Amino acid sequence: MSQGAVPSREWARRALDVIMQKALDAVDPAEAVRRQLRLVGDQLAVGGRSYDLSRVGRLVVVGAGKAGGPMVRAVEEILGDRIGDGLVIVKAEHALPTEHVALVEAGHPIPDRHGLEGARRIESLISRLRADDLVLCLISGGGSALATYPVEGLALADLQSTTDALLRVGASINEINAVRKHLERLKGGGLARLAFPAQVASLILSDVVGDPLDVIASGPTVPDTTTYADAWGVLERYGLEAAVPSSVKRTLQAGLRGELTETLKPGDPAAETVHHVVVGSNALAADAAAAAAEDEGFNALVLTTFLQGEAREVAQVLAAFAEELVQRGGPIATPACLILGGDPIIKEKRAGKGGRNQEMALAAAVALAGIRNVLIGCLATDGTDGPTNAAGAIVDGDAVARAERVGLDPLEYLAENDAYRFLDALDLLLKTGPTRTNVNDLAFVLAW
Amino acid sequence: MSQGAVPSREWARRALDVIMQKALDAVDPAEAVRRQLRLVGDQLAVGGRSYDLSRVGRLVVVGAGKAGGPMVRAVEEILGDRIGDGLVIVKAEHALPTEHVALVEAGHPIPDRHGLEGARRIESLISRLRADDLVLCLISGGGSALATYPVEGLALADLQSTTDALLRVGASINEINAVRKHLERLKGGGLARLAFPAQVASLILSDVVGDPLDVIASGPTVPDTTTYADAWGVLERYGLEAAVPSSVKRTLQAGLRGELTETLKPGDPAAETVHHVVVGSNALAADAAAAAAEDEGFNALVLTTFLQGEAREVAQVLAAFAEELVQRGGPIATPACLILGGDPIIKEKRAGKGGRNQEMALAAAVALAGIRNVLIGCLATDGTDGPTNAAGAIVDGDAVARAERVGLDPLEYLAENDAYRFLDALDLLLKTGPTRTNVNDLAFVLAW
Repeated sequence: MSQGAVPSREWARRALDVIMQKALDAVDPAEAVRRQLRLVGDQLAVGGRSYDLSRVGRLVVVGAGKAGGPMVRAVEEILGDRIGDGLVIVKAEHALPTEHVALVEAGHPIPDRHGLEGARRIESLISRLRADDLVLCLISGGGSALATYPVEGLALADLQSTTDALLRVGASINEINAVRKHLERLKGGGLARLAFPAQVASLILSDVVGDPLDVIASGPTVPDTTTYADAWGVLERYGLEAAVPSSVKRTLQAGLRGELTETLKPGDPAAETVHHVVVGSNALAADAAAAAAEDEGFNALVLTTFLQGEAREVAQVLAAFAEELVQRGGPIATPACLILGGDPIIKEKRAGKGGRNQEMALAAAVALAGIRNVLIGCLATDGTDGPTNAAGAIVDGDAVARAERVGLDPLEYLAENDAYRFLDALDLLLKTGPTRTNVNDLAFVLAW
Repeated sequence: MSQGAVPSREWARRALDVIMQKALDAVDPAEAVRRQLRLVGDQLAVGGRSYDLSRVGRLVVVGAGKAGGPMVRAVEEILGDRIGDGLVIVKAEHALPTEHVALVEAGHPIPDRHGLEGARRIESLISRLRADDLVLCLISGGGSALATYPVEGLALADLQSTTDALLRVGASINEINAVRKHLERLKGGGLARLAFPAQVASLILSDVVGDPLDVIASGPTVPDTTTYADAWGVLERYGLEAAVPSSVKRTLQAGLRGELTETLKPGDPAAETVHHVVVGSNALAADAAAAAAEDEGFNALVLTTFLQGEAREVAQVLAAFAEELVQRGGPIATPACLILGGDPIIKEKRAGKGGRNQEMALAAAVALAGIRNVLIGCLATDGTDGPTNAAGAIVDGDAVARAERVGLDPLEYLAENDAYRFLDALDLLLKTGPTRTNVNDLAFVLAW
């Protein structure tokens, strides 16, 4: 605790603002790049690996993802004229002014011809490089849709209808990825193979819980363990052989006959020339929050960065931690800040307004009713929970009593998934504005 | 870890058996009494308070609850002939042979005339005691129904129909208790007032999360903060003034007019002569489990003893802790044992077989699929989850693959709340047999 500060609701509330801001700062795309990309003389350090730029021929920057704008700006700040050429695909209205790397705006979540054109230009930028060239690849959430580039003979619409068919039958994300990676040029390590024999350094801002490199943006620089046989097997498993476009069927069968190249496989030379650095992730934000909480005078503990489950039920568990903190001083002594990161969901959403973080906060307020000296905060790191213009909310044990005094029934709002209006009326919403980053959600349980 | 043991699934599985057994041992009713009741010479220590039996006139043992049998046996072991008289009400088929304290079997959860007769006998045992007499009161789960004793002019059926009416309109447990305490003789401190001016030492085995003394068995020795006005207000709030039996209405209105004595209030002399000791609780079991886990070579942490929420969703959070342990070695280093205690629920149960612990284990198995070096165990401390003949189950990341090999779809069983049959087929059920204790549920997340 800061010198002389007495634990109080106001003190904890102000501290939580600081803790959340520090967590967001840690995964700010530009800041995340700056932390992992350092140029000293000719030595370019990318994460733990160093590249001697005096021996590098051409330096090319490519990539795709919603955070592409600020990531490119940070790279230009550091490398300036050293950048030979570059192109990064970002979401519509997400471009920023840049000097050396072109930003192309494209459709998301539905891929469009702008993304396709951008992907073609990336292909031509990297497909005739030499072994002494270096590709910096900037990957962030949304990159999979933004850089959609079907193989020869397939149209964007063929990919879309195939994905739709797989979603309808309830195929898993891994099954869908196995198919998609065999129908596109950049996914499943395709980008790394195009860049070969150049060195590739991939800077990845992870929007997937657990940071599985082959899943984030469909792993354009990451070896793929699935095969044409696996992809075809998925269609067979769900009886979709006839339902998918004939071009898709033709492609996968040609692959099965060995007429097409497989996706990049572990051990392939093009897989060996790639270096991956996760520059930002939920875990990084959670750890930064814990450090900030300690600075603010709390004992802090990150309980998990894999949080999942129905938001309103996860809220019950958060409240159970709050009770344990105030009643038994565990699992750590108060003043305490527990941090949980991940990706809770709302399974079936009714007509109301509000995202999973707001709903979790509302349910937590109900569960906390009457408990003193606790706060629970729920934050969507992209700043647009739902999407709404709120990032989440912060609630305490008095929120329900306050609501009742003004005639609001929290259970009614919860039943309609209408957390936004309830929290707005009580002035409990968090409004960060869009953060231009996304490392999923963070939940905080504070007690003093 | 024990000398030379290598972490393995078998090692962890055996350790978890030991950990669970130690947790159950800690809240064994007889053991719990023995720990808090010690006789040295004439000095009887009950928790932190000492009674000089050479100055005690008559020692009487009363009480109610499902764990009454073994609690009485432990008291007799320690006090033998010093016991002047006694009667404890237990559930049907729960009596054991005793020497000095009569055990009366009665209906549960529906009160019956056996319980009423037992309560009358308790009243006559304690209602003419003197200031130098001592009452040992043994309270455990189920005591509220077992010792139901309506006030003058009310029948058991009147109480039952009042409770049913309150349940139908969705009254909270606190509201129901406010009414019941004003319609019965022993609840809401009534037993303590009957025993006054004798000293009362209450030994409580808690089956309510957080151990609220006024809620466990409806607090027969605990002051009540609600009034006749509160009780009547509950009926008014739900428009039940006409729906409840006329005898109930007459009683509460007589109370409102000051014609009847209020329940025991804080500050009343009869509230000052009572000493409470929680001899067993979920927290005690969780702490014992943590100590046992450390002995077995794990780092251990009790995360909460207030666990609540829908069992299958709580399972997602348990799996999130398992992932954090194996992926990031947090919140404590592996080999690790996280312990969560409390009272998760199944909100709407379909026709299948199995209790909340089995369902939580099944959902955890799905969430853990493919994760190595983890175990999740879910245990009903009464040994009869559901109720079934299983106490819960232990699952790992391989359970779903094993199920698929024998043609079982875990999601089908989950959809039907049919966890028992799934877990039974895979030999994953825990069978402790009835434990004669109940401190709610414990969940364990082990990783190595």
